[in-house]
Amino acid sequence: MTPGPASPLPVAVLGATGAVGQRLVERLADHPWFEAAELVASERSARRPYGDAVRWLGRSPLPAAAARCEVRGAGEALASRLVLSALAGEAAAELEPLYASRGHLVVSNASAFRLHPSVPLLVPEINPGSLDLLAGQEWAAAGGGLVTNPNCSVVGLALALAPLHRAFGVEAVTVVTLQALSGAGYPGVAALDAVGNVIPWIAGEEEKIESEPLKVLDADFPISAAVHRVPVVDGHTEAVFVKLARRATPEEAAEALSTFTGEPQRLGLPSAPARPVAVLREPDRPQPARDAERDGGMTVWVGRLRGDRAHDLRFTLLVHNTLRGGAGAALLNAELMVARGMVEPARVAAAVETS
Amino acid sequence: MTPGPASPLPVAVLGATGAVGQRLVERLADHPWFEAAELVASERSARRPYGDAVRWLGRSPLPAAAARCEVRGAGEALASRLVLSALAGEAAAELEPLYASRGHLVVSNASAFRLHPSVPLLVPEINPGSLDLLAGQEWAAAGGGLVTNPNCSVVGLALALAPLHRAFGVEAVTVVTLQALSGAGYPGVAALDAVGNVIPWIAGEEEKIESEPLKVLDADFPISAAVHRVPVVDGHTEAVFVKLARRATPEEAAEALSTFTGEPQRLGLPSAPARPVAVLREPDRPQPARDAERDGGMTVWVGRLRGDRAHDLRFTLLVHNTLRGGAGAALLNAELMVARGMVEPARVAAAVETS
Amino acid sequence: MTPGPASPLPVAVLGATGAVGQRLVERLADHPWFEAAELVASERSARRPYGDAVRWLGRSPLPAAAARCEVRGAGEALASRLVLSALAGEAAAELEPLYASRGHLVVSNASAFRLHPSVPLLVPEINPGSLDLLAGQEWAAAGGGLVTNPNCSVVGLALALAPLHRAFGVEAVTVVTLQALSGAGYPGVAALDAVGNVIPWIAGEEEKIESEPLKVLDADFPISAAVHRVPVVDGHTEAVFVKLARRATPEEAAEALSTFTGEPQRLGLPSAPARPVAVLREPDRPQPARDAERDGGMTVWVGRLRGDRAHDLRFTLLVHNTLRGGAGAALLNAELMVARGMVEPARVAAAVETS
Amino acid sequence: MTPGPASPLPVAVLGATGAVGQRLVERLADHPWFEAAELVASERSARRPYGDAVRWLGRSPLPAAAARCEVRGAGEALASRLVLSALAGEAAAELEPLYASRGHLVVSNASAFRLHPSVPLLVPEINPGSLDLLAGQEWAAAGGGLVTNPNCSVVGLALALAPLHRAFGVEAVTVVTLQALSGAGYPGVAALDAVGNVIPWIAGEEEKIESEPLKVLDADFPISAAVHRVPVVDGHTEAVFVKLARRATPEEAAEALSTFTGEPQRLGLPSAPARPVAVLREPDRPQPARDAERDGGMTVWVGRLRGDRAHDLRFTLLVHNTLRGGAGAALLNAELMVARGMVEPARVAAAVETS
Repeated sequence: MTPGPASPLPVAVLGATGAVGQRLVERLADHPWFEAAELVASERSARRPYGDAVRWLGRSPLPAAAARCEVRGAGEALASRLVLSALAGEAAAELEPLYASRGHLVVSNASAFRLHPSVPLLVPEINPGSLDLLAGQEWAAAGGGLVTNPNCSVVGLALALAPLHRAFGVEAVTVVTLQALSGAGYPGVAALDAVGNVIPWIAGEEEKIESEPLKVLDADFPISAAVHRVPVVDGHTEAVFVKLARRATPEEAAEALSTFTGEPQRLGLPSAPARPVAVLREPDRPQPARDAERDGGMTVWVGRLRGDRAHDLRFTLLVHNTLRGGAGAALLNAELMVARGMVEPARVAAAVETS
Repeated sequence: MTPGPASPLPVAVLGATGAVGQRLVERLADHPWFEAAELVASERSARRPYGDAVRWLGRSPLPAAAARCEVRGAGEALASRLVLSALAGEAAAELEPLYASRGHLVVSNASAFRLHPSVPLLVPEINPGSLDLLAGQEWAAAGGGLVTNPNCSVVGLALALAPLHRAFGVEAVTVVTLQALSGAGYPGVAALDAVGNVIPWIAGEEEKIESEPLKVLDADFPISAAVHRVPVVDGHTEAVFVKLARRATPEEAAEALSTFTGEPQRLGLPSAPARPVAVLREPDRPQPARDAERDGGMTVWVGRLRGDRAHDLRFTLLVHNTLRGGAGAALLNAELMVARGMVEPARVAAAVETS
Repeated sequence: MTPGPASPLPVAVLGATGAVGQRLVERLADHPWFEAAELVASERSARRPYGDAVRWLGRSPLPAAAARCEVRGAGEALASRLVLSALAGEAAAELEPLYASRGHLVVSNASAFRLHPSVPLLVPEINPGSLDLLAGQEWAAAGGGLVTNPNCSVVGLALALAPLHRAFGVEAVTVVTLQALSGAGYPGVAALDAVGNVIPWIAGEEEKIESEPLKVLDADFPISAAVHRVPVVDGHTEAVFVKLARRATPEEAAEALSTFTGEPQRLGLPSAPARPVAVLREPDRPQPARDAERDGGMTVWVGRLRGDRAHDLRFTLLVHNTLRGGAGAALLNAELMVARGMVEPARVAAAVETS
Repeated sequence: MTPGPASPLPVAVLGATGAVGQRLVERLADHPWFEAAELVASERSARRPYGDAVRWLGRSPLPAAAARCEVRGAGEALASRLVLSALAGEAAAELEPLYASRGHLVVSNASAFRLHPSVPLLVPEINPGSLDLLAGQEWAAAGGGLVTNPNCSVVGLALALAPLHRAFGVEAVTVVTLQALSGAGYPGVAALDAVGNVIPWIAGEEEKIESEPLKVLDADFPISAAVHRVPVVDGHTEAVFVKLARRATPEEAAEALSTFTGEPQRLGLPSAPARPVAVLREPDRPQPARDAERDGGMTVWVGRLRGDRAHDLRFTLLVHNTLRGGAGAALLNAELMVARGMVEPARVAAAVETS
């Protein structure tokens, strides 16, 4: 268990009023290492108390301290060295490099820079070493940097593929997703499109699912995806079919999946699940309404492990899209950076002075 | 356009109070060739007016003539030569051969005899010639016979694969279904399991999807399925990935699919859709709530036709599970048998006398 | 049965791309008297084919003729004397008087002028005589006029109260609504707010329910409302409690409700339901998913008629909010105006010349 | 804060495999005073490990200790003096008196004995003194007794009415409920009846709502109810209209509601919410998906407090039906009995010997 900082580290949240931003604020409220010191949103919200500016979507009430916090405008100078970004596409593309160039360590959930060669696409259990890329980033001289986590569907897929790839070699993947409404943010999907319906398309999603896992796993195999929006609140379900280099029985695959751990578990990071991947034996699980929130929403649940005539392995996985696939992913990334000593208070102070 | 019978042919419905049985009763109410003369259900319902015995699920009101009809008990002698069966597993296994042995032509939606070598697994657009099997059935001497239609998911899949198989040769199929609640009958799925949830399993469904299309298409290639129940009322969505013997562009595939017709269209059967398969160009279609009921629920809607690195072709299809995949399938089968002259009134009379 | 016009009357639709506008376009496609000649929408849609400009929400496909129709911009000169308005608040407040002043007869679904003393708030079965108000409108000299229908919840409530008020005298009403998503238009309610949830508030709705029925019924009694949005696609359910001047048994009330008819029935108007109000005897009806669409969506379904210690009568009603409570209400109003000879072709021509 | 028992008190759960029974098992797993020592269910489940016998519905996993517990059959001798009953109607009517006659203190969630004159219908914040009735029960000589909590909708209604009744005098109540699916148990409502629908009826529910609050409040005023089932998982919403003896402004009512506390709060019982009733100021709250689980599910949330022409007060309330209205209600009742010294260990032992 890594000892945390002596006193809570202040962090800033970009896009704090959005769906993922709210999840960050919620998680930060009782985080043992971090403190939500600065909440940043668009001009419309700036200079209002967060509690007035936000349309709070959470089931737990808006944390009182956050509610009183005055929202800052996008681009304003920030004192926190760590900046968690829950921004959407264009705002991310503009603001994340800006803050990195001012010496902040930006930990982003946005897609804008995920595939950039000098930017880590980090899943701490899989590729913690990708953090070495920061030294070569253009913002390194200023003390800044940018780290991203994958798309919400990809986090679940990559965590399930990683142990299989190491043990047996993955050669091809076909994946069909049934994605939750919260993945579209708020207001997101219109209720008239969602209730009693399936939408067989999400803009840009298949492209992300077919490319991001390859960077995370440092691999090259074909991935074929078909995505759907379903009337579920939280939790993406994915039906996965895998061709392996070396055949494996479902039992061998289950063993590889359920014994998989990584640096977050060794370091005892606060957001690290005990098991990154858990295998369920009941024939009708995992189910988003019953399993997504379990164990803090940071475990990927795998069920229905079996082989077939056409693929070596098939299974169903469930990932909590706004926790393990969103706010929790960013927090775990930030925790790993702290544990690795990349966020020394001294440099924070220095960074702040220069900003 | 085949001229229909001079006067409406009386038909019997087995399992008339169930979900598919009700759809049959509904469709028969204004059918140009048939008349629901005998409604058969379990002993609990027997000798009561159908309107009292049934918990009517339809959106259109219970047809008045059917409501007054006295329900007959399972196994009772029937006067109609044509017997449409909406029975479930065990009851089908017992009663369908019984009625066939009494000289009835049983047109079944049940799974019990679908894979039996002497029983046609009929999709009239694809394998009308399979009706020749009736001559060799053990009930042929008594003037009876048994014809089945495939599982609801399979009807949609087989209709989409048939034109591709003819034009390009299908070598492997991966299919993931998002199936509607009505597929489980009534009461079927508990609301607490369905609302805001996905259930990644339906008992026996994957086995049917992996075997029945091969009999319908008279082919042998691997099919790999993963099935899900989603909170949709009617309409099964299926994400399909296909390996072809001869590569085809999405445009060539669209052409093959949308020009596909068969004997029902040539004969102008009453339940035949103008197009067995229609290709939608909008990126986010088909959708069950918007497309399943279109064109009478007998067309299979295909969208998102595209290729990928790992498969030659992928697409999404939608089939109305209780119409094209259930009641409508059985009716179309029965219509084809009438059009082929297999249901002569004379033999009906004879059959009735001997029963 | 009123003979309709010799040839279809051209009508214009304001707000044709919105949710109610689409329902008008859908209904006009096979209307025996009218023809959707001009489709008007905001500048964003103007001069594009309607099929490209609209995000079609209907379950039946977009009518082909409408799809080809070039959308006109708001405020453009129109040739049709009859203008059906499906505009929202502010646009209605500006454009409806504009078109009335140009000699058009504007039949509006918007709330802007409903309570204006010189504007009929018309439910043809209840207050057809309110059309006499048109003669005194400021636009009368120009040959124009403005007629409105009530709020979607109010149409159902007023139709159920009217026969009771006539027969027994209504003294007080308490009403609780469970309103469908389509009542909020498109995109309307966010799916994250709707799925598995109830929202106990709709802006401005209770005020309309507490005032509009009094104008329709030409009465003055207290109405107390509490409104809710529920995850239902179409069909507002309302639990109603009534205090009567003269006590009535549930049987007497059922008799009054189910024998109620009005001028639309006498005239045989195309959109008139055979029964404006129908009483259901099953204990668990009406239900929106099963009853709203019945009989063309123009009947108000009443169930669970009973008395209690605190009120003289209570019951549940169901009204199809976008048909009887929206597009169908406006059409029925327009049909009544035609049947009364208020839309003579001659005057249309004249009106067009002066516009 | 009442000191709890020196060591955990063993309790038995009747109907442990049902929906409310599971909630009891879940709550008992980390209860500071109690320990789920005996799990009782029907013969079908008896002598199997609870984990095999139950179809676990909870979002949190089945507690490990309970999973291993061998289920006992209904009617078997029990060692625990406290018996929590989550039985349904007939089983409750038979088994609850049986166990009371054997010296057990039965704390029941069932409706069978709620209105029996010698049985407390207990809401600890309102009528703790009703526990005095136990001394006069026929089972008192054997050391046994029977205590009930009200129907799930009634717990919420009674808690909201109690402070108003004390402060202003309630003279009449009209209440319309929008009830969650979990209130019907499992499997309960069929998904085909629930998805996208409202059912305006629940058998026996209106009768309970119109009678039980009068016993809890020791009052007599007319209550008129209309109940609906809506597609919500947990949390009953109720629209309430109240006539008061002494007029009160919404502010005065809010003050009375939010300052209301009772014996559970004074005693600091483990399941007691800090506030039995909380008043929300946002115009669109409470909402079941967002508010039902807050504060442990034991608070009744009141919103939209306002007056009107026809009633002195109206508001919306939300009660978690299986917690405050079910398992939590029974636990709070049991805790009050322990705190009052009614469950001495000595008598438990004695009772067990005689059983």
